[in-house]
Amino acid sequence: MKYGIVAFPSKKLQDLANTYRKRYDPHYALITPHITLKDAFDADEAEIGEISKHLQEVASRFAPLQIHASRISSFYPTTNAIYFRVEPTPQLENIQKSIQEKINFGAPKHVFVPHITIAQKMSASEHDDIHGQLRMVGVDEKDSIDRFHLLYQLEDGSWTTYETYKLTGAE
Amino acid sequence: MKYGIVAFPSKKLQDLANTYRKRYDPHYALITPHITLKDAFDADEAEIGEISKHLQEVASRFAPLQIHASRISSFYPTTNAIYFRVEPTPQLENIQKSIQEKINFGAPKHVFVPHITIAQKMSASEHDDIHGQLRMVGVDEKDSIDRFHLLYQLEDGSWTTYETYKLTGAE
Repeated sequence: MKYGIVAFPSKKLQDLANTYRKRYDPHYALITPHITLKDAFDADEAEIGEISKHLQEVASRFAPLQIHASRISSFYPTTNAIYFRVEPTPQLENIQKSIQEKINFGAPKHVFVPHITIAQKMSASEHDDIHGQLRMVGVDEKDSIDRFHLLYQLEDGSWTTYETYKLTGAE
Repeated sequence: MKYGIVAFPSKKLQDLANTYRKRYDPHYALITPHITLKDAFDADEAEIGEISKHLQEVASRFAPLQIHASRISSFYPTTNAIYFRVEPTPQLENIQKSIQEKINFGAPKHVFVPHITIAQKMSASEHDDIHGQLRMVGVDEKDSIDRFHLLYQLEDGSWTTYETYKLTGAE
């Protein structure tokens, strides 16, 4: 089964991201707006109890995530995804690293750049056009996220929540 | 904010429901296949801590839900939704009643009929046609569900999980 680990920002920030995703992101219907903490990885259902225990440990060490979506940026030329850039902080880097260390399934595909995707899978010219527009509009939202989620993927590509982990620590 | 309480069946049963929902359910993209334990209700964000505590109490009393999706049925003429009928059991009735008693927001709109919706919002003739076909195909799946979820709704109608409650009791 395919699993992933994400943090959902506040409803306000999700609603804002969806105003763009509705038009520009073909994954719009598969999952609500999120910050990916660990990319999709394969695991047996038998292993998921252990994984869940590790995630519970991580969650008990970290305090609610203080995030700042500060501007609209693009991963071009790596991919043509456009996103709300979430300012990197030691807290975000540490929680991502802790999750990666504890759950050693699948190496991270790329350096951790915290973000909320709002557009992807466009042609090169669409990308340039939309990126140009959205960069000017920008974003400036601060948020506190007090939990993260382990999800699993259905055959149609959509994601269901398996479990929620509340951030109850101090880090 | 609008909240709802659901139990997601196994991936296998969700995948099966989605083969129909993809074609026949316009809510397909808003939420993955589920059994509704409490219909959408309005609550303040300030109240949600209390609500969550009540749900935790309910979850600690009940054992994993043993369900049997036994046939394909329709709510016609109340609505034209078609669904996997989940055989009513004392366990399902008790957990639904306990949730309703503990969370006294919004009276239940109708008698509790446990089900997984697979088609809705069709014209009367589409309904009759599709119901006729699917009733013949039928369904016969048993499943054990060891948790339920509190969700909240975004402005576009989609649902994000707020929290997961594991069924760890004996009832």
